[in-house]
Amino acid sequence: MKNDKITAGNSEQQIKPYKKDADYSYTLGAFPTYELIKAKPKQVRKILVDSSFTDLEKLNKLCSEYNISIEINNKLIQKLRDKENSYVAGIFDKYECSMKADKPHIVLVNPSNMGNLGTILRTAVGFGIYDIAIILPGADIYNPKTVRSSMGALFRLNFTQFQSFEEYRQQFPEHEIFTFMLNGEKTLSLRDCPKAELYSLVFGNEATGLDDSYLSVGSSIFIPQSPDVDSLNLTIAVGIGAYVFTNR
Amino acid sequence: MKNDKITAGNSEQQIKPYKKDADYSYTLGAFPTYELIKAKPKQVRKILVDSSFTDLEKLNKLCSEYNISIEINNKLIQKLRDKENSYVAGIFDKYECSMKADKPHIVLVNPSNMGNLGTILRTAVGFGIYDIAIILPGADIYNPKTVRSSMGALFRLNFTQFQSFEEYRQQFPEHEIFTFMLNGEKTLSLRDCPKAELYSLVFGNEATGLDDSYLSVGSSIFIPQSPDVDSLNLTIAVGIGAYVFTNR
Repeated sequence: MKNDKITAGNSEQQIKPYKKDADYSYTLGAFPTYELIKAKPKQVRKILVDSSFTDLEKLNKLCSEYNISIEINNKLIQKLRDKENSYVAGIFDKYECSMKADKPHIVLVNPSNMGNLGTILRTAVGFGIYDIAIILPGADIYNPKTVRSSMGALFRLNFTQFQSFEEYRQQFPEHEIFTFMLNGEKTLSLRDCPKAELYSLVFGNEATGLDDSYLSVGSSIFIPQSPDVDSLNLTIAVGIGAYVFTNR
Repeated sequence: MKNDKITAGNSEQQIKPYKKDADYSYTLGAFPTYELIKAKPKQVRKILVDSSFTDLEKLNKLCSEYNISIEINNKLIQKLRDKENSYVAGIFDKYECSMKADKPHIVLVNPSNMGNLGTILRTAVGFGIYDIAIILPGADIYNPKTVRSSMGALFRLNFTQFQSFEEYRQQFPEHEIFTFMLNGEKTLSLRDCPKAELYSLVFGNEATGLDDSYLSVGSSIFIPQSPDVDSLNLTIAVGIGAYVFTNR
């Protein structure tokens, strides 16, 4: 295997552990890194690998296709990675994307947990919903923890952050709105799922859900659940909502 | 407020940070601790609180009902808690329970992540499935991380660990088996969900799923998903399976 693009480099000056206001972020682990390269090759600055990475040949082949350089740098990987052992990291430039006005959306109001946010992104892509709105304040979609728990699904998505739900609504006035709430008016059932061509599925924060003002912005939906739990986990609620709406 | 049962104690000798082979474990945080007291009061050894806990009155009232003692012990709570700030811990004796032969089951084959396991327990209770089998090896159901992510749902459940799927099957031969697999034969749909009075929903490990031997132990089920993800998250798959089967 030969590749001029593999170097034993020293990028410590340019690449630091993640900060929210940096203009770059990174994947950790092989799977999300492959997803990054395949879905957003132009955003990749470089791939870092630890010298003990066992699948350099496959990675090198893929990087060669897209003219992406690989740097062997154990020290820097160690600095970037969290408690889990990762032997590959993909440094990428943050980017802007546009949500499509003619596709269904998932709207997350103030999601607070990065692991949950990543799982939701993975689930959305799993059910073929590729357009995600985040109403701020909310978890950082570019944080490596979010990227990792999305398993790279982030790179398949169009996402936009909004300062308020009203701002989102103004930009997408055509979508029929479904808000998922514990006091939702309509119980989500298999036989009688609401029908809409163009819809937004709206979910609240992990701890507080959606406040009562969301009862009147569209149709409010309750996922039936036992009184023995305070609520379903947010990721589960999104999974069920997305499954039912995309499988009617 | 007066209660002879509140003491400024020193239990450091008896209570140590969690170990798998200990005969006790503990809840961290107010919500799971209340769930423990309400659902399994006889298992509670004592409740520890930090002196800065703000809702001692409510806790004290509940503990008085069940004759449970409260110990104020900042040092010990600090030793037990993980990175999240918890001001209450409930020390409880581990216990055995029996799964019901006439109720639906969820069977988890080698679940590896404690956070996932806890979320699955919460989800199961959310959909009214109270009997859980774990096929070993698997994540420790009593680890405080599992307990926390279950939000105390653990205490509402009957669970049993088995050395093999065959051992489970021998004990519950009447259940109709549904295995959730990426190469499952039947696609799970809203209109055409399999019907069974008494069923077991079987899910594999996070990374590897169920191996092909599970294609023939019952009906294998595929949750439809986009080719843009490798698979759904295990917790999401369980959530959708449980929702569909309990809402037919």
